[in-house]
Amino acid sequence: MTVTDAVERRRAVKWFDPHHRLSDGEFATLMEHALLSPTAFNIQNWRFLRVTDAARRKAIRAAAWDQAQVEDASELLVLCFDCKAWEKDPNRYWRLAPQEVQDFLVPAIADYYRDKPQIARDEGMRSCGLVAQNLMLVAQQLGYESCPMDGFDYTKVGEIIGLPEDYDIAFMLAIGKGIKDPWPRPGQLPLADVLVENRFAAAD
Amino acid sequence: MTVTDAVERRRAVKWFDPHHRLSDGEFATLMEHALLSPTAFNIQNWRFLRVTDAARRKAIRAAAWDQAQVEDASELLVLCFDCKAWEKDPNRYWRLAPQEVQDFLVPAIADYYRDKPQIARDEGMRSCGLVAQNLMLVAQQLGYESCPMDGFDYTKVGEIIGLPEDYDIAFMLAIGKGIKDPWPRPGQLPLADVLVENRFAAAD
Repeated sequence: MTVTDAVERRRAVKWFDPHHRLSDGEFATLMEHALLSPTAFNIQNWRFLRVTDAARRKAIRAAAWDQAQVEDASELLVLCFDCKAWEKDPNRYWRLAPQEVQDFLVPAIADYYRDKPQIARDEGMRSCGLVAQNLMLVAQQLGYESCPMDGFDYTKVGEIIGLPEDYDIAFMLAIGKGIKDPWPRPGQLPLADVLVENRFAAAD
Repeated sequence: MTVTDAVERRRAVKWFDPHHRLSDGEFATLMEHALLSPTAFNIQNWRFLRVTDAARRKAIRAAAWDQAQVEDASELLVLCFDCKAWEKDPNRYWRLAPQEVQDFLVPAIADYYRDKPQIARDEGMRSCGLVAQNLMLVAQQLGYESCPMDGFDYTKVGEIIGLPEDYDIAFMLAIGKGIKDPWPRPGQLPLADVLVENRFAAAD
């Protein structure tokens, strides 16, 4: 499937075949490609919590406005990020680069994030957005549908998955075999409403 | 180009042919597909600032650690978001949905974001991450390379582009004809370091 086909076909699907399972190979393909999504300074700050346990799915559904896709989708990933990834052995992110690149970049990582928790949080949200689109488009190519979700109680879901202290949740992603067409796109803005050239007008 | 090919080939490229221009059709293809990326509640909170003016590119480069791709790439998009998109005529995001869907969803938008500026900011970073991956993969299919960037002075770039009060910058994206292979991937983490099943261990 071409990229443009996948982008055009991807919709947030809420109804999945609860009996369908991804093969191990399909899940591996998803995750291998997830890991190729970009992160600033290559800090790879995303952490993927895969929920396979039925009781835990049920508990998360209760914390997510009872949305059926939480239980019915073949895969439920809680997309998390480590706000302190930048300071945890950052040499590993550049270990294969030439020494002069390592010498320049590794210290720059701490300079960028140190004492700036909002910047580290922004980075987590960005990284998870980037990786989720990778995952959704690869899922589309594999014949699956997906649903990105932030309609849930973040604190409760954090408790259910044992979210570590340094981590935060960005959002969740359900992936599976869609069984019902989504409604037509409900109200896309024209490009002129969201694209500006060179400088925003003072009145914006 | 298939999705998986595009994901595998995409790298952060820093060296672009400064003489190459995208055709109007190519740019339109990029943006049409950008607008198909998902946003929570369909609020379409991204705003795209396209920098075509050479003097402005030069000024942004000076605010971005003198990185050459800012001036050399065919396209430079500053990915912004409107933190108040949720309250600006939200009916438009659901105007084509059945009335009962509108009646349920439109009030839920304000309930989700009202008096929660951090949540609105998180949403902007997520939305821009999602749309940027769409843009980068479509660019790959069109034969282009890209570079997502957050190594710049956000305040200065905001001044250069006249960032409106309700807006924030998520990051920038350079797109163009790559002229030099990027270095090999510098240190990808193994999947086992970032994927956890059902619950994080207490020691994480």
